[in-house]
Amino acid sequence: MDEKVILGIDPGTNVMGYGLLKLVGKKAELITMGVLDIRKQKDPYEKLHLIFEHVTQLTKTFKPTELAIEAPFYGKNVQSMLKLGRAQGVAMAAALHQGLLISEYAPLKVKMAITGNGAAAKEQVADMLRRFLHIPDEMMLSQLDATDALAVAYCHFLQMGKPVSDVSYHGWKDFLAKNPDRIK
Amino acid sequence: MDEKVILGIDPGTNVMGYGLLKLVGKKAELITMGVLDIRKQKDPYEKLHLIFEHVTQLTKTFKPTELAIEAPFYGKNVQSMLKLGRAQGVAMAAALHQGLLISEYAPLKVKMAITGNGAAAKEQVADMLRRFLHIPDEMMLSQLDATDALAVAYCHFLQMGKPVSDVSYHGWKDFLAKNPDRIK
Repeated sequence: MDEKVILGIDPGTNVMGYGLLKLVGKKAELITMGVLDIRKQKDPYEKLHLIFEHVTQLTKTFKPTELAIEAPFYGKNVQSMLKLGRAQGVAMAAALHQGLLISEYAPLKVKMAITGNGAAAKEQVADMLRRFLHIPDEMMLSQLDATDALAVAYCHFLQMGKPVSDVSYHGWKDFLAKNPDRIK
Repeated sequence: MDEKVILGIDPGTNVMGYGLLKLVGKKAELITMGVLDIRKQKDPYEKLHLIFEHVTQLTKTFKPTELAIEAPFYGKNVQSMLKLGRAQGVAMAAALHQGLLISEYAPLKVKMAITGNGAAAKEQVADMLRRFLHIPDEMMLSQLDATDALAVAYCHFLQMGKPVSDVSYHGWKDFLAKNPDRIK
């Protein structure tokens, strides 16, 4: 049976949430979820390095083929967007280096896909995921960054087969397949 | 004699400029400079992947120990800053993964260090570099992204020994050395 693993991440400059889903046939099962807390690390480059190394480790351990990333397309100010872009960039670099395909979803789209309400609270999203994935109460983390990351992985699972993400490019191989005329 | 190599890069979403300087004693010598043109690559993730792979290759080939990066701290809008942040992030990830220390310099500071004028034109900066580094005319590239990148490497060389950059953190080892009390 075709088994596929999706890594969902919600990268930030203080905490990176992650969640891994295994697709068995047409069902999704939770593998793991968690958070990488980088608040105590003051060096901004070491924060980025930790994100890179952690995404690399998750990828080597669980062998996902797809990265789904929560990506707000707006922010408070240009400075915070630059920092967020760097955090996203290092996470993407780790995934790209391991050959993963990337899909991005805006937070509103993730909430909409999971709860039917683009303005749903994080707690509602977490509760729906708990039900969909039959996650025992004691396994649910209080850190909502982890469920946010799991949510984007689940959103990607729901979208599979449909036009798959806000940004519909899927890496070099997909680009080659879709654009044979562009290649000399 | 102590030999040190500095990699300077000017990452963008269309072109990444790079320049490599070798420090022999108290002098700097040009190793190479160039541009990575990613305009033709339409897939935004493949652009990031190319930046990551190219910085990795440059690092493996020339073994720099320091990355100096030109980093504007403001931009037209949040969307362009997010893209720039991603491009910077993947370049930084490649450097951090290879153990380089990172220093950032604002464009104004680079121009000031090299020409004495923070508002100098790119051509002026290029001309000063040509003189400082005794670069034959035929080696000067018309692509000013390359000289911009070389300029930030040269700026870093000039700053060495002084407090070294706009952002004065220098990676994990330096952080350890400067903050022994933070480590359990």
